[in-house]
Amino acid sequence: MTQTTVSYTAKRTLSAVQTRKCLNVDNINQHVRDAKYAVRGELAVKAETYRQRLIDGDKSLPFDSVIFANIGNPQQLDQKPITFFRQVLSLVENPLLLENTEVLKKSFGYKQDVIDRAQALLANVQSVGAYSHSQGAPGIRDSVAKFIEKRDGFSANPQDLFLTGGASSGVSTILNVICSDPSTGVLVPIPQYPLYTASLTLLNARCVPYLLEEEKAWGTNVNAILKSIEDAKAAGTDVRAIVVINPGNPTGASLSADDIKKVLDVAAEESLVVIADEVYQTNVFKGEFVSFKKRLRQLQQEQPGKYDDVELVSLHSISKGMVGECGHRGGYFELAGFDPQVQEQIYKLVSIGLCPPVVAQCLLECMVNPPLEGDPSFELYQKEYTGISEGLHKRALSLFNAFQRMEGVELQEPQGAMYLFPTIHIPAKAIEAATAEGRPADEFYCLALLDATGVCVVPGSGFGQKENTFHFRTTFLAPGTDWVERIVKFHSEFMDKYR
Amino acid sequence: MTQTTVSYTAKRTLSAVQTRKCLNVDNINQHVRDAKYAVRGELAVKAETYRQRLIDGDKSLPFDSVIFANIGNPQQLDQKPITFFRQVLSLVENPLLLENTEVLKKSFGYKQDVIDRAQALLANVQSVGAYSHSQGAPGIRDSVAKFIEKRDGFSANPQDLFLTGGASSGVSTILNVICSDPSTGVLVPIPQYPLYTASLTLLNARCVPYLLEEEKAWGTNVNAILKSIEDAKAAGTDVRAIVVINPGNPTGASLSADDIKKVLDVAAEESLVVIADEVYQTNVFKGEFVSFKKRLRQLQQEQPGKYDDVELVSLHSISKGMVGECGHRGGYFELAGFDPQVQEQIYKLVSIGLCPPVVAQCLLECMVNPPLEGDPSFELYQKEYTGISEGLHKRALSLFNAFQRMEGVELQEPQGAMYLFPTIHIPAKAIEAATAEGRPADEFYCLALLDATGVCVVPGSGFGQKENTFHFRTTFLAPGTDWVERIVKFHSEFMDKYR
Repeated sequence: MTQTTVSYTAKRTLSAVQTRKCLNVDNINQHVRDAKYAVRGELAVKAETYRQRLIDGDKSLPFDSVIFANIGNPQQLDQKPITFFRQVLSLVENPLLLENTEVLKKSFGYKQDVIDRAQALLANVQSVGAYSHSQGAPGIRDSVAKFIEKRDGFSANPQDLFLTGGASSGVSTILNVICSDPSTGVLVPIPQYPLYTASLTLLNARCVPYLLEEEKAWGTNVNAILKSIEDAKAAGTDVRAIVVINPGNPTGASLSADDIKKVLDVAAEESLVVIADEVYQTNVFKGEFVSFKKRLRQLQQEQPGKYDDVELVSLHSISKGMVGECGHRGGYFELAGFDPQVQEQIYKLVSIGLCPPVVAQCLLECMVNPPLEGDPSFELYQKEYTGISEGLHKRALSLFNAFQRMEGVELQEPQGAMYLFPTIHIPAKAIEAATAEGRPADEFYCLALLDATGVCVVPGSGFGQKENTFHFRTTFLAPGTDWVERIVKFHSEFMDKYR
Repeated sequence: MTQTTVSYTAKRTLSAVQTRKCLNVDNINQHVRDAKYAVRGELAVKAETYRQRLIDGDKSLPFDSVIFANIGNPQQLDQKPITFFRQVLSLVENPLLLENTEVLKKSFGYKQDVIDRAQALLANVQSVGAYSHSQGAPGIRDSVAKFIEKRDGFSANPQDLFLTGGASSGVSTILNVICSDPSTGVLVPIPQYPLYTASLTLLNARCVPYLLEEEKAWGTNVNAILKSIEDAKAAGTDVRAIVVINPGNPTGASLSADDIKKVLDVAAEESLVVIADEVYQTNVFKGEFVSFKKRLRQLQQEQPGKYDDVELVSLHSISKGMVGECGHRGGYFELAGFDPQVQEQIYKLVSIGLCPPVVAQCLLECMVNPPLEGDPSFELYQKEYTGISEGLHKRALSLFNAFQRMEGVELQEPQGAMYLFPTIHIPAKAIEAATAEGRPADEFYCLALLDATGVCVVPGSGFGQKENTFHFRTTFLAPGTDWVERIVKFHSEFMDKYR
């Protein structure tokens, strides 16, 4: 037996010959190794180190605070949670509080609708400490269906809803079902939120990129999509799905009803599953959000037959919008047009993970069914919601204005989501310096920015970008203008240094 | 283009030629299709239907309640959450309550340690609505490390801890890293919790079964493990890890320090990663729980060198024990002996999912750091904890006694976990009837039980069992004795019918 063991060990430890450990970086699942996820990558880790050094009293850094503009995490920054949501959650967490509602009202300002909602949710889930149905508690799915019906003007079926632990886990579920072998391809916009490429890498499937048009406010170009499909097919790829992020991440672009129709046309023509990532649906500054589901149902009415077999997954989340409850990990996806047998398999897959967090399900219910005009909590809810919304828009514009002042920086006026994604024209000397370090030039720029200012943003290379262009993504969530000025000052010095 | 589309459609729709849908059950990821997860399978779905029919006033069923004894979901049944935990969570959900602590104390019985704990947790996570570090909030990991140190008498490093959304997601993460290609094998006890086989099927890796010894109280037999390894190697399998569930699920068996040493010996000898599923570590009725981590550190002290390279993952959860907070989705795993580069890859993988639910992280902190003697909340905590523990033991024994009265049923005295797993000697005629229906005989039995009594248990075939033996798994969580009598009566009629 010893001999066999030795030969195994040898096979396993290409890079670590002195150890008898089973696992090393060369023999683990190489799809895990190959997956890239810049949002929480090297820059984020370094920013965290700086934050800890500042807490520990380190005075040697050239800044006195770290600004996490790398991730859409509103409550890490300035944003306060919406009172109605959290009051309800405090009661579902400790139902014993409901035994003295008068005190809740008198001393803590809880309104009757908060109490009613908590009681209704508890009746539905029994206890937030119990596993729910794997698709989410039935009563909560009913509420989500009503929300979709109200939003779209078309019916929604609670059986087609799957509550999730955030949109990310929903995307992972769906891609896991779609990707059947290494030739499976999924169309992904470039730039994109790197969850998509990372998930496809993990599943050993192919990312089929289609470029968004920066010059047209990061719009979706159908010809680019068709060309990508053609090229992919020529390379033997079985193109099965198209991801659309609307409003866009990292671009902030918001699609028109006509843009959406064009994507649905391609999907109908080419038998593609449409994965509509609509987590920023309430973060729209310009125009109006149109859901893929609504557009699909309209087209199905207008042209019977043509769109009947389109398969659509639309994703939503409690992490974004004016809710910003990332840490709770909640969301849902809705299926439309799926084969019932496939849907059964999706159910089985999610059942292996048992159920999404039940508190997050309750929060989702509050999000889709907030206090209405006339309800006791409406006034405060409305004030908080509008305050967050206006604050985001104001910050987006002030960041936009600052970027416009910067040499060699170009960007679109903010349309939605939580991000700006400016182009930076990086001087040739800086590109050389970056190459010498073995880094993309935008990563080099963002690392220099972090080292000099404590502001953490994500290089465009983390999302994908047209060759020879450079960008970075920053959220506009951080309060104040000091950090914006830090960027402006750094940029000017960077340009001077490498001019 | 139409022609290309048609050929694609044809390729895709083997079983549904009339549709232009992209996905059907024959072309989706077949590993998803092949995965089996009986805990929430056909029987559970049928039980849910019965429950709904009863709610809707259906009087045609031969029972008036459905008993979900198929899943360890304490708060779905009788178990109340522990007050201290939920009081703390109500405050982290709504920190505005902390503005009037006098009222909390006077009207709601909150003690000072509840308030202090909530404040400490909030200082740590900032807001439960913010994403935390992907491994979990640093301060909470510190608490978990202290808990492990106290439990084992050996140090634990917070950097080696990964907080999770329940143990299931931890298992999935670890197996995803370990399984590098279709020849990777993982030793799994039979019977097992089907999460393991389901995850391995999803990852297209091999389950290498090793049989537990029913006649020795479901103990772990090293010779059986070695034989399985030998057979697997002969079949070209790269055996990389061994799963041990202690206390056992579904068996309830509790391993001795000596049993654990034997497993660690094999792991050291064969360079296997040990995956110790220890979620039932406080559910032990007989003897004392010994953790794999403690035993490993002892052996490393006693015999320097031999165990140095053993890689251990130990998993824990807030869903089981006396906590029973399944719906919150929380837990952790600890790594020991892992290559730092591999550990980095594990970090990257979890970072793609952003972070585990932050409320569940707070609850985990309360679980590992509960009120101590002298703390204001201690007395109530102690009373509740002991009450749950004694209740579980009492129910386990009363169920055990009932099963002993049943013809052709054999089982071990309950040792731990939340389950009994009796053998049932099914009459030949019943086996014939089952075969005619294309079902394993124990599934046939469990389905008949559900149809006749409303009691939902899981057939042994869902966990794996020695050939020609039949079992079922039932939790002992449901209150009362009525449902036990229903089983006894059904069993006697079943035996008469098929004798």
